[in-house]
Amino acid sequence: MNKIEPRTLAGFMELLPEEQILFEQMKQKIEKTYQKFGFLPLDTPIIELSEVLLAKAGGETEKQIYRFNKGDTDLSLRFDLTVPLAKFVAKNYGNLSFPFRRYQIGKVYRGEKVQKGRFREFYQCDIDIIGDGELSILNDAEIPNVIYTIFKELGFDDFTIRINNRKLLNGLFESLSQNENATEILRIIDKIEKIGKEAVIEELEKISVSKDSINKILEFIEIDGTTDEKISKLQNLNIENEMFKIGLEEITETIKYIRIFGIPENNFKLDLTIARGLDYYTGTVYETFLNEHREIGSVCSGGRYENLAEYYTNKKLPGIGISIGLTRLFYVLNELNLIKAEQKSISKVLVIPMAEDLKVPIEIANTLRKQGINTEIYLNDKKLKAKMKYADKLQIPYVIIVGEDEIDSGIVKIRNMETGEEKEWNYNESLKDVLI
Amino acid sequence: MNKIEPRTLAGFMELLPEEQILFEQMKQKIEKTYQKFGFLPLDTPIIELSEVLLAKAGGETEKQIYRFNKGDTDLSLRFDLTVPLAKFVAKNYGNLSFPFRRYQIGKVYRGEKVQKGRFREFYQCDIDIIGDGELSILNDAEIPNVIYTIFKELGFDDFTIRINNRKLLNGLFESLSQNENATEILRIIDKIEKIGKEAVIEELEKISVSKDSINKILEFIEIDGTTDEKISKLQNLNIENEMFKIGLEEITETIKYIRIFGIPENNFKLDLTIARGLDYYTGTVYETFLNEHREIGSVCSGGRYENLAEYYTNKKLPGIGISIGLTRLFYVLNELNLIKAEQKSISKVLVIPMAEDLKVPIEIANTLRKQGINTEIYLNDKKLKAKMKYADKLQIPYVIIVGEDEIDSGIVKIRNMETGEEKEWNYNESLKDVLI
Repeated sequence: MNKIEPRTLAGFMELLPEEQILFEQMKQKIEKTYQKFGFLPLDTPIIELSEVLLAKAGGETEKQIYRFNKGDTDLSLRFDLTVPLAKFVAKNYGNLSFPFRRYQIGKVYRGEKVQKGRFREFYQCDIDIIGDGELSILNDAEIPNVIYTIFKELGFDDFTIRINNRKLLNGLFESLSQNENATEILRIIDKIEKIGKEAVIEELEKISVSKDSINKILEFIEIDGTTDEKISKLQNLNIENEMFKIGLEEITETIKYIRIFGIPENNFKLDLTIARGLDYYTGTVYETFLNEHREIGSVCSGGRYENLAEYYTNKKLPGIGISIGLTRLFYVLNELNLIKAEQKSISKVLVIPMAEDLKVPIEIANTLRKQGINTEIYLNDKKLKAKMKYADKLQIPYVIIVGEDEIDSGIVKIRNMETGEEKEWNYNESLKDVLI
Repeated sequence: MNKIEPRTLAGFMELLPEEQILFEQMKQKIEKTYQKFGFLPLDTPIIELSEVLLAKAGGETEKQIYRFNKGDTDLSLRFDLTVPLAKFVAKNYGNLSFPFRRYQIGKVYRGEKVQKGRFREFYQCDIDIIGDGELSILNDAEIPNVIYTIFKELGFDDFTIRINNRKLLNGLFESLSQNENATEILRIIDKIEKIGKEAVIEELEKISVSKDSINKILEFIEIDGTTDEKISKLQNLNIENEMFKIGLEEITETIKYIRIFGIPENNFKLDLTIARGLDYYTGTVYETFLNEHREIGSVCSGGRYENLAEYYTNKKLPGIGISIGLTRLFYVLNELNLIKAEQKSISKVLVIPMAEDLKVPIEIANTLRKQGINTEIYLNDKKLKAKMKYADKLQIPYVIIVGEDEIDSGIVKIRNMETGEEKEWNYNESLKDVLI
């Protein structure tokens, strides 16, 4: 028979079990943290009607969509979890309690150019808080608490949640009569860390921003000092613009409550250069950086938007949310050897039967499982050496060998595979004390 | 602006949060049980090259495939988790430890005719044990241990794992020189419970099985009594056929070890009528029924196959596995009100601030979370009544109201939302004792 070469599509992550175990641990820590803050689970289909999914999309995103017909139906694979959320909330408005706090962790699809570390199928881990008509600014301060808890859980200490408010920027542009250019200006200043100040000035001149306005913009984004110093410098700019004033109030309030939420000063920062490319955001915006690995880019971003589902409903649904691109995050952390794993195997114990009689080893395995200990029993006919090698390769931390002697005496030895240390266990007793 | 009607495709399950919580609990119980037996996680892409995914498929399945082009590439969505497993094992053969025990829980896609309780996107929860060249029959006895543990975990007692061995049937047919008709005969006798004995005889006559052979076949599938009586009746059939003899040995061994694995007699059964439609299986086969709800059909099925990945590799990879169609199972159990939920909410506690000062309520929420208790804090400006209603609708079991008095005294009241009972808590102490 002719064989088909077994292969996986480029841009699609497929891990070996030992890596998958680490991936699952990261995923679970994120999910548990979302739950710890009371976010509700949601699981929307991966396939949606193109008409529904692409209600808003256009330009770059649309080209990347996996879109196809099944029979007469025009279908697309979701490219994020926000549009399905908007559809879901608009569809089920009457059955939801607001503020609606939901998390969703799932795969999304974008046919991006394949390159190292970029994926066409990847997990997003999202939370959003959706208000019915209104949503308190306190939510803007709670989101960093979630981000903080997640990255601590993942074993990081030196990270910074960078915060800004789009109303500051938009108000500034308005005061300079640059509303029309706002999106373009945002796009340019967003690049300042990458391309430098001079290049930003050049690009701003190209789109006919006046010298005076450029100076004001730079004066704004170059504001430095501590968070409190920055806020007082913003006040001193004396920008006479309503939106700017609201933005300043919002960011002041947000910072005040971020502190009450208990986020340490070195884990957050007011960063006036952060705009987030999308014109979607209308208030607070976040980006999160691992300070020793700035090159990775933001590992958790999001912000506040005025209206989640305007393409589907007249209801005003303001919201705030963040997203973690888990597949890419896992990939880069794994490359940098930065994944802190408590556990490298699924099984904690491998029971190895070495006698004809399987009653005792099976009983031991069942007993351990009832005590909540993941336990595998080696059921195939191999020499002891091969069985030990199996435990070793799977990095199973403990092995129990059950031969004739052990069956006769009722006492087995538990071998710590890392240290080689052995402890005796009378298997009618609880193992937990012996293992730890 | 014209609004797009927010809608979800027919045949795609999308649950409200209160149902999604129950779904996630079922999914997690299955996953935890798979892990308890040492199965390793795997997560393959949902999209594969059609050439790879459809290496084996044909007929009915192929029509149901979601298949499309992206650029020049012919792609398909996976329709089960077995073909991706075969691809994965063939591709990564050198990097795996055998027996390779993996679980995978993920969505698969089949464009079936839409009808109530049938889904086009649904979760399968699979385990498989793959041997390198050989795989001990003991594995056939361990699989029912996993099935048994799962359905006990899901809160069921009255279920039966029905077991058969395809070699018995195939050996019988061989002894009757009916090898050619084997698949067709299997298909017919598989229906005996549905269509009755007479209709089976009629259908067998239609495909020219001799009266004598029909009698032998019926004599075989009508064997009754206890499991041990059935085995001795099988021996007494005196069928002189090598395959039948091997099948009889295998099933005898399997039953012997199922008992040693501790499965109660009323939770398993030798059922000679079970064939499983697929010609894929070559040895032990399983179906699992909830006895009070036979109409649901088998809730967990699978079996032994000779060669997992013959379309991709010359390596002989025998295996055994089972699958739970979770989406359908959840749907029918939910319809029948048979889902046993320990927990109907994500949050265990809702903290309701009723004073200007948020320091204390936030501190309480953070403290509870650190103690492992999922806690939400109500952050929006509403009257107490609206906040209580929110807790009620989300079925959050405990509420803590924090007003001026509580802040002054350092003592809050924890209200059990079901009983109305209130307990005082000094929030510098651990809450766990108070809650339980």
